[in-house]
This record gives sequence, C-alpha cells and structure tokens, in this order.
Amino acid sequence: MQYFKSDYMEGAHPLILERLCQTNMEKTSGYGTDEYCASARRKIAEACGCPQAEVHFMVGGTQTNATVITALLRPYEGVIAAETGHINQHEAGAVEAGGHKVLALPHHEGKLDAEEVDRYVTAFYQDPSWDHMVAPGMVYISHPTEYGTLYTLDELKALSAVCRKHKIPLFLDGARLGYGLAARDTDVTLKDIASLCDIFYIGGTKVGALFGEAVVIPQPGLIRQFDTIVKQRGVLLAKGRLLGLQFDTLFTDGLYLKIARHAIDMADRIVEGLKVNGYTFYIRPQSNQLFVQLENSLYEKLAQRIGFEVWEKRADGTTVVRIATSWATREEDVAELLEELKNK
Amino acid sequence: MQYFKSDYMEGAHPLILERLCQTNMEKTSGYGTDEYCASARRKIAEACGCPQAEVHFMVGGTQTNATVITALLRPYEGVIAAETGHINQHEAGAVEAGGHKVLALPHHEGKLDAEEVDRYVTAFYQDPSWDHMVAPGMVYISHPTEYGTLYTLDELKALSAVCRKHKIPLFLDGARLGYGLAARDTDVTLKDIASLCDIFYIGGTKVGALFGEAVVIPQPGLIRQFDTIVKQRGVLLAKGRLLGLQFDTLFTDGLYLKIARHAIDMADRIVEGLKVNGYTFYIRPQSNQLFVQLENSLYEKLAQRIGFEVWEKRADGTTVVRIATSWATREEDVAELLEELKNK
Amino acid sequence: MQYFKSDYMEGAHPLILERLCQTNMEKTSGYGTDEYCASARRKIAEACGCPQAEVHFMVGGTQTNATVITALLRPYEGVIAAETGHINQHEAGAVEAGGHKVLALPHHEGKLDAEEVDRYVTAFYQDPSWDHMVAPGMVYISHPTEYGTLYTLDELKALSAVCRKHKIPLFLDGARLGYGLAARDTDVTLKDIASLCDIFYIGGTKVGALFGEAVVIPQPGLIRQFDTIVKQRGVLLAKGRLLGLQFDTLFTDGLYLKIARHAIDMADRIVEGLKVNGYTFYIRPQSNQLFVQLENSLYEKLAQRIGFEVWEKRADGTTVVRIATSWATREEDVAELLEELKNK
Amino acid sequence: MQYFKSDYMEGAHPLILERLCQTNMEKTSGYGTDEYCASARRKIAEACGCPQAEVHFMVGGTQTNATVITALLRPYEGVIAAETGHINQHEAGAVEAGGHKVLALPHHEGKLDAEEVDRYVTAFYQDPSWDHMVAPGMVYISHPTEYGTLYTLDELKALSAVCRKHKIPLFLDGARLGYGLAARDTDVTLKDIASLCDIFYIGGTKVGALFGEAVVIPQPGLIRQFDTIVKQRGVLLAKGRLLGLQFDTLFTDGLYLKIARHAIDMADRIVEGLKVNGYTFYIRPQSNQLFVQLENSLYEKLAQRIGFEVWEKRADGTTVVRIATSWATREEDVAELLEELKNK
Repeated sequence: MQYFKSDYMEGAHPLILERLCQTNMEKTSGYGTDEYCASARRKIAEACGCPQAEVHFMVGGTQTNATVITALLRPYEGVIAAETGHINQHEAGAVEAGGHKVLALPHHEGKLDAEEVDRYVTAFYQDPSWDHMVAPGMVYISHPTEYGTLYTLDELKALSAVCRKHKIPLFLDGARLGYGLAARDTDVTLKDIASLCDIFYIGGTKVGALFGEAVVIPQPGLIRQFDTIVKQRGVLLAKGRLLGLQFDTLFTDGLYLKIARHAIDMADRIVEGLKVNGYTFYIRPQSNQLFVQLENSLYEKLAQRIGFEVWEKRADGTTVVRIATSWATREEDVAELLEELKNK
Repeated sequence: MQYFKSDYMEGAHPLILERLCQTNMEKTSGYGTDEYCASARRKIAEACGCPQAEVHFMVGGTQTNATVITALLRPYEGVIAAETGHINQHEAGAVEAGGHKVLALPHHEGKLDAEEVDRYVTAFYQDPSWDHMVAPGMVYISHPTEYGTLYTLDELKALSAVCRKHKIPLFLDGARLGYGLAARDTDVTLKDIASLCDIFYIGGTKVGALFGEAVVIPQPGLIRQFDTIVKQRGVLLAKGRLLGLQFDTLFTDGLYLKIARHAIDMADRIVEGLKVNGYTFYIRPQSNQLFVQLENSLYEKLAQRIGFEVWEKRADGTTVVRIATSWATREEDVAELLEELKNK
Repeated sequence: MQYFKSDYMEGAHPLILERLCQTNMEKTSGYGTDEYCASARRKIAEACGCPQAEVHFMVGGTQTNATVITALLRPYEGVIAAETGHINQHEAGAVEAGGHKVLALPHHEGKLDAEEVDRYVTAFYQDPSWDHMVAPGMVYISHPTEYGTLYTLDELKALSAVCRKHKIPLFLDGARLGYGLAARDTDVTLKDIASLCDIFYIGGTKVGALFGEAVVIPQPGLIRQFDTIVKQRGVLLAKGRLLGLQFDTLFTDGLYLKIARHAIDMADRIVEGLKVNGYTFYIRPQSNQLFVQLENSLYEKLAQRIGFEVWEKRADGTTVVRIATSWATREEDVAELLEELKNK
Repeated sequence: MQYFKSDYMEGAHPLILERLCQTNMEKTSGYGTDEYCASARRKIAEACGCPQAEVHFMVGGTQTNATVITALLRPYEGVIAAETGHINQHEAGAVEAGGHKVLALPHHEGKLDAEEVDRYVTAFYQDPSWDHMVAPGMVYISHPTEYGTLYTLDELKALSAVCRKHKIPLFLDGARLGYGLAARDTDVTLKDIASLCDIFYIGGTKVGALFGEAVVIPQPGLIRQFDTIVKQRGVLLAKGRLLGLQFDTLFTDGLYLKIARHAIDMADRIVEGLKVNGYTFYIRPQSNQLFVQLENSLYEKLAQRIGFEVWEKRADGTTVVRIATSWATREEDVAELLEELKNK
C-alpha cells in the first residue's frame, strides 16, 4: 500500500544526511552561532534578494508561528488569519496560550482576501467600542495554504498593500514554501515574498530536511531581542548547526527548488490520473497536496489499498481525502497509485 | 435629552449608599473576610436554594469572566461561547490573554443552542486531529444575553444536560441577571440557575450596586484555591466589605428583584410606545435592553433628542440602536421618551 | 480593643461619601470618559507639575502593579524590585502570571540601592550568557515601602539617573504615597516624583478613598493603547466616575495631603509612646506604619488588648508586629493605645 | 586548541547516525506515533523498572522544563528550585512566561537541601498571608546539577519524602543524566530515580543524540492530555521517529551508560592532571563538568591555548572556568590538554 498521507513521512534528502555524517565529529559553538548557520543565512538572504535580511532557524512550524506572533504583537493585539489557517485549527491553541486572539476571517480555498482584510481593519477602527476589542495587529497567511492553494502575485501584492496601509506586518507561513515556489502555474518568487512580507519562513521539515524552518526578516530589527524570545519559548536548538547544515545544503545549487519540483511533477501525474478516471477534486489542485472528494462507498474501497489521509467526513455522504507528494515520493509508487485509482 | 444608553450610568440604589454611609467608620478586616461579606454570602446562598454554595465577590464583569474561565480551564482547553458573547467581542481579548481560546459557535438572538453545542463537542472528539486542537473545556452563556434575550427553562436544562453529558462545566454570566429574573415572560428562577449551572454570577454593577458581581459555586470545591487566583488576577478588593454591604442590601427583603422589576416595567412602557408608533425591533424585546432598527434618516433625526446607543451601522442603510432601562430609570424620563418617539 | 492592623479598615473620607451621595442619580458615560474623571485628571496633573501628564484610574494596588508592569515590559524582560517588594511577596505571583520574572535584589529597610541596581544591570550585559537570561526591563520601587520607609530625594534622584542611564523606566508604587509625602522628615514632593519617575501611582484605597489608584504618566505616550490593556486585564471600572469623583475630592483644597498628615500625627504620638515605654523598633519609623519587635511573652500579653498585625515570627523568640495609622485614626483610640502600651 | 567548552559541541554517536541513514526513506506516521518511538518507550520504561511508565519525547531541555512545569502547576502555584537552577538562570524566563514563579532557595553546590525545602513549605502555610502568595506546587532539581554535582541516594530519598509529605511532585531535570548515572562515586541508579521522582527526563542532547530528551512519568496519568500541551507549546516534533530512533539506539545494549562512562573516564584523567599540577577546584568534581578557579593572569595565559568556558569573573581577581567532557571527547585531545595544563 502506497502512503501519500503527508509530506513529512520520510527522513531527509540524502545530501543532507551525508553532510550530517561528514561533519558529525566537528566541534562547533551552540545555539546557531556556528559557521554553518552563518553560511546558510548568507545563502538564504541572497536567494531572497535581501543581503541584509535577518535569518533565524527554528525546529518546527507550530513553534515558529507561535514565537513570531508572540514576538510581533503588543498585548492588546490579535492576528488576522483565514478561519482554516493552521494557527486557528491545528496548533492546539498555541497563539492563545501566548496571550493573543486569532481574528478569523472567511477563507477562499484557504486564502484570505485582501479587500476583506481591508474592510475588517477599517470597520474595526470605526466601531465605537474598538478600544474594548482586540486590535488587528498583524496578518497571517500560509503559502501554499492548508488546502494546497497559492496566492497569485497580484493577490499577494494586494495583501501587502493593505497591511502597509494599515501599518500592520504581514507574516507568511511557508511550511511548504518550496512546493509553492515550484508549482506549475505560480507567478510568485521567493524574492517577491521577501519584498512583500515583513516576516516569513521557508519550511524545511516538509521540503527535504529532517526538521527546520528558516525565519526571514527582510528588514532587520523588526523584532528586538528576537533570539532571547526564541530561547524563552524553548525553541533555540542547542546544536544549532544541525539547522545551519540542513539549510546550507538546501540552498546550495538550488537543491530546495529542485526537490520541490519533483514533488510537483509527481503530483501532476496523480492529478492527470485522477482526471482521466473521473475523480472529483474538492479543491482545485495547485501544489503538492490534492484534495479529492469521494462517495463514502468508494472511499471505503480505496482506503483498503491507498494510504491517503481523511480530511473531512461530510454530511452529504462523501469523504474528502488528501493525497500529498513530497521531495521523497518515488515514481514507482506513483505508478502503482495510478493503477489503483483505475479500480473505482 | 433622556439618556437610555446603558444600565450603568447612575450610582447605586439609595439604600446601598445609606448603608455605606452608616458603616463608613467601622473597622473591618480586609479582602472579604468581614461580617458583611459573610452575611451577604448566607443570603445569596439561601436565595439560590444552596445553603452550601460558595460565594465570591468581584468588582466587575470582565474580570469575573476572565478569572472564572482561567481558573476552570486546563491549559489545552478553550471555552465555548456564542460568537456574540461578551467574552468574544468586548473584553479586549481577556480570555486569550489568560491563555485560552474562545470557541465561538453561531448565536441565535445571542443564545447558544444546546444541540449545536452537543454536536460540536461530539464532532470534536471524532476529529482524527482532536488532540492537536483546543478541547472544549467549558460552556459560557450570558443570561440575559448581550441582546437582552433570555433562555427558557427548557433551553437551560438542555444546555445543562449537554454539559453534564460531556463533563464540562456550564458557566452563566449574569451581569444583568436581575433583569432576566424579573422579566415578564421568563420561567427561569435563581434556584433553577443554581441547580443547572456549575458556576454563575449575580450582577450588581448593572442592577443597583455601585459595582460588584457575586460569583456562586453551588457545589463547593469546584475550583481549588480560588481566592488566591482572584488575588493573583488583582481583583480581590482590599475593602471587601464594600461588596458585602452592597450584596447584603440587595439580598435583603427581595430588593434585587424589586428594583429589577422596575427596569422591566419601564422597558415595557417603551416597548409599547415603540410598537404603537410602528418601530421595528431588531431583536424581540425580552428584558431591559431594547434593540430597534431605524432608517438612517430617522436615526439622525432621533439622535438629536434621544440618548440611545448605536449598536450597529448596517449595510442596508439602517442603524440598530439600543435603549436600556435600569433600576434607576425615572418614569418622567420614560414619558418624555415616549413623546419623542412619536415624532418619527 | 483598638485596631491598628492596617490602613484600609474603614470606608472613605466623609467628603467623598458626601459627593457620591450628591451625584448618585446623575447619568454619566462609562469607563472613565465622564467629566469627574476629566476634572480629577486635570487636578492631579497640576499637582504633579505636569499639565500634560496622562492619568489613568484603577481600583486596587495589585491590579495596578500587574497592569503597568505587563504593559511596559517586552516578553524577554523582567522587573527589578527589592526582595521585600509587594510584587515579589504578596501579590500571589501576579507579575509572573503576566509572563514576567521579578528580578529581586537585596533590600535596605525595604528600599533598593541605586548603586546595586546599576551594578546589576551593568553586570547583566557583561554576562556572556545575557541573551539567555531575563533582561532588566524596568525598576519597581514602593514609596513608602512595605516597611514604611522613605527614599530621600537624593536616593530617588540616584535611582532615576541609573534608570535613565540604562534606558529602563522607573515605576513607583505609591499605594501609600500620601503618607510618604506628609511624613515629618521627607524632602520628596509629588513634583519630584513626577519628574524622576516614568510612571507612578497615587494611592487612594489606603489614603481616604473607598478604593482607587491614580496612575500618572508624566510623559504621555509611554504605553501605547493603555486603556485597552486596562480593559483586557479586567480593571477598567464600568462606572469610572466613582474613581473620578473620589480623586477629584482628594485633590481639591489639598485634602489628600491634609488627611495623610493626620495619620502621620497619630503615628508620631504612638512612636513617642513606644519610645517612652522602652519598646524596640524593628525598623526606624518614618511614615504611618510602625514595626515593633516584642519578646513573645510580651507579644502574647499585648495581643489580648491591642489589634496590631503580626508581621513576622522570628527565630530569636521575638515577634514583629505592625501598627498602622490612617486618615481615619481617632485621637481617642490613640490615647487608649498609649495607655495600653504602658502595661508591659 | 582543544575545545572543552560544553558537552553539546559535536553531532551524535555514530550508531545513531547509522540508523538514521538506514531508515531514512522509510515512511512512518508523525508526532511520535511510529514504531521506533514505541520501541524506545518500551526500552526506557524497562530500564527504569517501570513497565507501565509513560514516556514522551521532546527536542531540548528548556522546552522540556517549561512544558512539564506549566503542565503540572495550577495557576497559583510556583516551582521550588535552587537559585542556581537552570530554570532560574539560563532559560530566559521560560517558566515565568508560562505564568509561574520560580521559588528560588539557596543552593549547596547546586543542590537543594531536603530540610530547607521542608522548612520552606511548612513555613509557607504558617504565614498568615499564605493565600496571597505563590504556593509551592512542585520541586525542580537537576541531576547532575549545573555545577556537575550529584545527589546521593539518601539526599534524593529525603527530597522525595518531603515532596510526598507535602503532596507536591518532584521533577528531576536529567539533561546530563547519563553522566550522573555513570559517575564514579554515585549510588543513584535510574531505577532509584524512577521510584523517587514523579516525573523526570533522560537527556539525549548532551549524551550521544543529535537532540532529544525523554520525559518519564513513572505513574501514568500524572498529567492529563499531556500530548496536547506538548503540541500547544510547539514542541511536538513532526517527524517524531527521529527521537524514537535515537533513544531506541541509546537504550539498546546499554549504549547510553557506556558512552556516558567514557566522558567520566576522560573527566577523571583531567581531574588527575589538574590535581597533580596544583589547580584549585571551585566545586568538587563529580561528573563530566569540572569547575576550576584560576588567577586572572593564569586564566589569560591558558585561554590562549585551551577552549574552556568562562563561568564567572569573580571580584577576588579570579576566573572560574568550566571544562566539560562528553561521549565524544577524544583521548588525544585530553592528552594534549593535560600537556597544556602543565604550563601554569
């Protein structure tokens, strides 16, 4: 049975493991002060077109989201997010545990709409009771979203303009950023993101690393004493070089995008197979996550042989499942999956 | 211009002031350990039909909500509330500042529906990712609600049953409880509330006191070391007897209900006048808060002469205003208001 | 038995009650937006010699301390305080509940020493691990201290200079400020405090009011959106005018200092009586709180007839008791106490 | 120049890397639900003599401390620790950021004294103001301590007895537990710890792993819904198997103790060399961390050639340095260090 449940089922890209092995017995100072981290920071900043950017390494997505949000917001502020946003659903209330409300707006295939954000913030300050309410202090988006969808460059520009108009930072959760950048039909580049967002991260855990997320702050100084906040939240890795080494490898010779492209290629084949066999997409596929809507009876049948993830049991007698590819997806597994999909 | 903006525009019932003056130079111990507090606790417990109940006094509603919720929830739990609930809207994120998410459900004229709560909790534990999500740890309702509406006894019983089925406490915000109990068409008594809720409070600030809310815990011991939590949140009044004296007065000779009834009488007259003059209610009036929907042009005209509160500017060219009566509303002011309402 | 246990055993100065009664049925807007608050703010700012000062009213000391400290500090910062400081001992961990460490330094009769603060902050930034530690983000002092002692003007200037050198705000807890300003041997005025501190409060609860503390920010804008933070912490009084009225009264015709002076006069007589009768002071008396050290046998005897507060049971077989006078202390009670003190 | 600055300067034991490489392309489910974690849990529980024990994996020490402490304490409780405890010094206020006070007691070479803890807790509940103070809710110790010292079995039994007498849990931070268990003169075994502590962790980061700490709860159920709390704090590793694999390797064939013993052997040689050459120990060496006190002039000289960590610059003109060995310390480096130490 092929497993397509998520994009974090395997370890790391072989080149990463190789470098971990090569450097294993070297002695370096801790907490990200080593040369591998410095090198990775330089390469990432360069790839972002922001040589001056600050880069901080963390271990996982939930901690990165919570740490960035806590560090950015003042006590009376909350974070605007799509209701489907990871921080609003599947992070066990980490933002609230840090003292802040998630201000959930309606989603559009997982995305926020710039005009709706604008209207929300404008209406907020027109409300006679606004100073008894949680002020919108930043905007959180994910790209790709939890539904695998992508902002267009125009959408991202519009969101950025709204944020700058209202003087609130725009934060992009790029846990799967590679798959967004490598997508077939995107017009958004890493440099666009660096110029339009105030802070964002480049996901490693789901794109080739054992673990790791690289937080980029294009204009340094956005968050005072950020390293101490990171330490306080318990997310400063002692052997920080493990993060530096991984990102240094991913950002050497374009490896990050190259392996992300493979996941997209594999997803494309599956999309093709799903279309040919008359399957219904719950969400139009755009990156490495595919959401397919199945009659429950068909779901039961396929679930015997295919390892996908149940996303939602719907009241209309259907099941939405997720099929995810990754940098590690093997061609032969895709071929087998395509065979299985024929047996509806 | 008559002011009907809110039910906390005046000071206190004269009997309360009188007792504050009489006892002013007495020396008592602090923090609620005095005899006036003890007496008030006894009278409240008796009125609730729970001689064993714990009673704690606090100063205002927001602090009471935040303190109770923080004290009841475990770190991974949130509080279910109607999306219109005060804790979700107008308390500046106090619940989140205490580390917990408000799990907002749709409202029905400001009320939660027991079946929807049941479905929500049931669905929560069926979600394959439930242990990465904020668990429903308690239910918050307000009675009267922020829209002045009331739960029926059956509705309250149903909510209570759902909470007990799922073993989560039911907390009733009674900031305006007097007006709910004194309402014309309610079948809910204070004893019902004490038997159906796990914790609730009897509002003083809006019902005759200078300030003060009496938290009742029918089954003592629900919250360990509650007084220390109250102290920690900075809401333990040094001269606690001020709270004891006020509630002792309100719960002597049925004063609390008597003055609440007056507010209802005044509201009834206004409702009658509004009906006679063809006004549109935004929400069916049930207690001391009336929500009227006005064409913007009419709103502009009336706003010159009547002091009501703007509740909502609607996209359809209307304005929803709130008219609130209280224990302090004077008959002559109501008469004048009724005159003004004729000039549409 | 005369009670000298604390300075918050009675209600309010009669002039305050009188005004509360006179204005009781007036209608005013809520949350401190009324004219009484505006007037009180003007008078306080004037008394501070800072017409531009921001003034915010809160109900009690613990909530004021916690709200100010939370609002001032960044997540990675803590507050320097004497180990005997109220925030470090008797506020049930309110500062920590708000997310911040109290950085306790040794006390000198309840006071911080400016040089020690300077050394602490200087050493902090020399520690190679400083960015893994809680940064000193502000300094908290109380005046009078918890031991009734007073900073001299020179001491206060030195502390202020250290704070300004290190760019951290100086916060003065003036829960008993009146008794400090009215003390016999002080050279510190309210204007000195306003020019040397970045934020401080003028205590009402213990000096003539039913309750209330007036937070003064000499340079407006120190804390962005402070009112919302106050609301979020549940300490914004709905009927804010109750605070305005009380402080307006206290700051009319010098009432605040006048009644504080009475407490000092009463304390002076008691000090005289204690000296004459050969009692031992645990701390040199400076304001309205007197700390007397008694052999346990003498303590047992006196405790039968005098209502003082046990401060500390010491290992050397003595008991430290506190005798507190206040604006409300009656001359005849002092006379009686003096009689009792003769019977050693 | 040989580096002996800390015990987290290298990667992982080669056997661990080998298994990471072997299993790299396997697909497993996330968040610690895989078979490697299950196996590691079984082996650890067995090594602890508690087959029923709960075992949870986290990434680093600070996050483990903060998560355990937050999960165990009620809002009004704090954690007793030695003033030198890591949580009180070098975790950037993580415990306070989680809402709790560290109740710091004097240390004895980094250790808490059971009698002092007993006296503290007893005195706490005798204080007339105890319910306005932070209650001692648990005890935190580290073993080895931050000074490399070790509790004897009797000391540990005494602490455990005090905790059980007062019904507060005992938590042992075992970030360097291996080096404690492998020490020459210890009489404390892993099974002793499991029977005397309510919760503790076995450090991997400093003892052979790339990263990872294994939290052991001998009596399951101590913390309700602990996994969700772990998720909320952002410290649940997505590819949880990385932790499982590492601990499974460390707890196979006694590897954990074996490699810890190597560090102790290396430390012993250095201790011998230090003694022979007349160096002064700041703290009697007991495990893999050695604290040596040097005249500043000697320090300056040695610092040119030896990579130790400056622990403290003392007022008496001396410098305390730390020399740490680890599982990765090479014999030839120790030999070289011993040569250098001769050149005083």
